[in-house]
Amino acid sequence: MLKLFYATGTCALATHIALEETGAPYEAVRLDFASQAQRSPEYLAVNPKGRVPALVTETGTLTETPALLVYVAQRFPQAELAPLSDPFALAQIQEFNSYLCATVHVAHAHGRRGTRWADDASSHEDMRRKVPATMTECFELIEHKFLKGPWVMGEHYTIADPYLFTIASWLEGDSVDTGKLPKVMQHRARMLARPAVQRVVAAEGTQIR
Amino acid sequence: MLKLFYATGTCALATHIALEETGAPYEAVRLDFASQAQRSPEYLAVNPKGRVPALVTETGTLTETPALLVYVAQRFPQAELAPLSDPFALAQIQEFNSYLCATVHVAHAHGRRGTRWADDASSHEDMRRKVPATMTECFELIEHKFLKGPWVMGEHYTIADPYLFTIASWLEGDSVDTGKLPKVMQHRARMLARPAVQRVVAAEGTQIR
Repeated sequence: MLKLFYATGTCALATHIALEETGAPYEAVRLDFASQAQRSPEYLAVNPKGRVPALVTETGTLTETPALLVYVAQRFPQAELAPLSDPFALAQIQEFNSYLCATVHVAHAHGRRGTRWADDASSHEDMRRKVPATMTECFELIEHKFLKGPWVMGEHYTIADPYLFTIASWLEGDSVDTGKLPKVMQHRARMLARPAVQRVVAAEGTQIR
Repeated sequence: MLKLFYATGTCALATHIALEETGAPYEAVRLDFASQAQRSPEYLAVNPKGRVPALVTETGTLTETPALLVYVAQRFPQAELAPLSDPFALAQIQEFNSYLCATVHVAHAHGRRGTRWADDASSHEDMRRKVPATMTECFELIEHKFLKGPWVMGEHYTIADPYLFTIASWLEGDSVDTGKLPKVMQHRARMLARPAVQRVVAAEGTQIR
């Protein structure tokens, strides 16, 4: 059985939702970041990067959200979470998810994880100050160029949707004016109406309104 | 015919090599970053992110290297650049490429693109100082945990290889001690022995030894 390691409030929520949408059995294991559980020798043996998510499969452990999302879609094709045999349509999903992973998540991370990229406290404070602007810029692109509606890719719900929902759940914490993002906020409401999303949000104990 | 927009010295090299490996016809268009060609209205109409690579296809434009690499592999399956029907093996490639995109490329970018994440000159200088350490940390993980050899995924050359080659070509510029990365450097030499890689490196005018 698949085993997902996650921590509350992290991007692991996306894979957690995708797994729940498939209806397949899996085990979800919560790591307590407050006690630095992701840096324990036991967990580093699972994922040497010391981060979440990590998905333990019968053939080995996988990490990185865009990879896990495609894996879930391809492993459980009956859930129809991605157009697996259409190179262009699949690439559009990967493009969106790569943008979330490498640009939007990274912009957000400068608010709390500045020590990854600089050493001085003044640099960390400078990075924190810029997060509302960079996250607003990213989400304006999503709002006006990428989010087709009602779902990210249009009429079909895909693995791009739980990932957008996850990253968008950080907007208020990053002091972004969500009033300027009506499509993103409608997408959030649409996600929260899905039973699978409700079950995972409750299980993780995440606060998303 | 596919049209790839690239700039010399950027991660677009990975997709350029992958395309060349397929043997399919394509057009490569160089953007001059020195004159800010990526910010021209003409190019922003192609890619509103103002970055490279961008791949113009018959059905629309795609961006983000991990997405383009899978697209090339899936569009030209006879080139056997990815194990498309094996969910775990494909996810391992995506995992590696996501790490390059969202962690390693991002670490590198703090040396030259600090204005993305902070405003003060002292912060940019602080970021620049840390690049050798963060890039070394990333590449030690690649050297010791991820690069199976002779190719990234083992016996088979895949879309992970041109991407690693591309990012590893920045090591010297980032003041990383490549003497501690023998497997990565052997991988570079192995790549430079491939005719497709030689053709693309010559076409882009890139200096890689």
